[in-house]
Amino acid sequence: MGLKGETTKQKILETACNLFYLRGYNGTSIDDILKAAKVKKGNFYFHFKSKEDLGYAVIDAYAARTIPLLQETLKQDGNPLRRLFSLFRKQDGRMKASQYRGGCPCGNLALELADHHDGFRRQLDAIFDAWAREITLILKQAQKEGTLEETVNPKEMAHLIVAVLEGSTLLAKTKKSGEVYRSCVKSLESLINGSPSKRAAQIH
Amino acid sequence: MGLKGETTKQKILETACNLFYLRGYNGTSIDDILKAAKVKKGNFYFHFKSKEDLGYAVIDAYAARTIPLLQETLKQDGNPLRRLFSLFRKQDGRMKASQYRGGCPCGNLALELADHHDGFRRQLDAIFDAWAREITLILKQAQKEGTLEETVNPKEMAHLIVAVLEGSTLLAKTKKSGEVYRSCVKSLESLINGSPSKRAAQIH
Repeated sequence: MGLKGETTKQKILETACNLFYLRGYNGTSIDDILKAAKVKKGNFYFHFKSKEDLGYAVIDAYAARTIPLLQETLKQDGNPLRRLFSLFRKQDGRMKASQYRGGCPCGNLALELADHHDGFRRQLDAIFDAWAREITLILKQAQKEGTLEETVNPKEMAHLIVAVLEGSTLLAKTKKSGEVYRSCVKSLESLINGSPSKRAAQIH
Repeated sequence: MGLKGETTKQKILETACNLFYLRGYNGTSIDDILKAAKVKKGNFYFHFKSKEDLGYAVIDAYAARTIPLLQETLKQDGNPLRRLFSLFRKQDGRMKASQYRGGCPCGNLALELADHHDGFRRQLDAIFDAWAREITLILKQAQKEGTLEETVNPKEMAHLIVAVLEGSTLLAKTKKSGEVYRSCVKSLESLINGSPSKRAAQIH
């Protein structure tokens, strides 16, 4: 594919990412995408077999934005928990910049499609699992460095963190305010920080 | 309104509750509701001004199912945290019975509508706040009885609990399994139970 074709494909994909995010998959037609991207129907079908095919590509694009972010955080130096908590704050910044519209792209599509399209459901579930896997690795680093109690199950805690992020992003979107998100994240951080061994270390 | 009129209104409302829950508000037309409820258009408009009017009534109905459940739990005897945790388990039972389809009715509508309809957004936000308010009262009871640490902020913890329930219900709907929900709730319970004062009480 030439440079122009690749650019057109990218333009369709980015427009679809944005429209699916703001209006949902079912609320967006191929015509909406063509109009917003200023692309002709023939060009669309050169790059994508169907709206469904584009849906898979959009979910892949969401994964490609979020999973490497977690992977990079894992590789950085410094206190692992502090690095993890900094990600929570970045999400607050992103929501604030969008005036608490949109919420989590993957959470939105999961709620809309999990009962109606098994392919999308599996693809989204794999993303949530990939996030939890990266967070598990960060928590294991924290245990190794002695900042997280050994009795904490990193995998279970990682799923809890994903649930809190999804749930509190939903609450922030509903309230149109970041206060409740920040409160949830603060409580979560206190609970993780307040693990017995750490407190024991502070006491002794 | 006669008994027959009230029954028709109730039938429309229950059908709409179910269809909005499974297909979303935008995915359900008045005709879908009339067909499923076996009600004529004239009868519909006798009871509801519009689909929007019905939407408000549906969200009210969701509130009327969930808030009294929390209020009753608050009034019961016995360990407050145990009563609260039993509600988490009931939610798992409900999800299992529906084969992890649907998710949380309020969470679904909030994600679908919070950016597009400010009236629905406010009504749904008020429900999340009402849940958090009832949970706050349960946590305050637990603090009074010495089973929850005094340094925990009940209001912040209540919002965290709502976020965990919403987020882990979303993960269960995506995974079509209750395992991740149970894992999240178990971690949450451990964190609440593991508050310093309680551990101190166990140690001393």
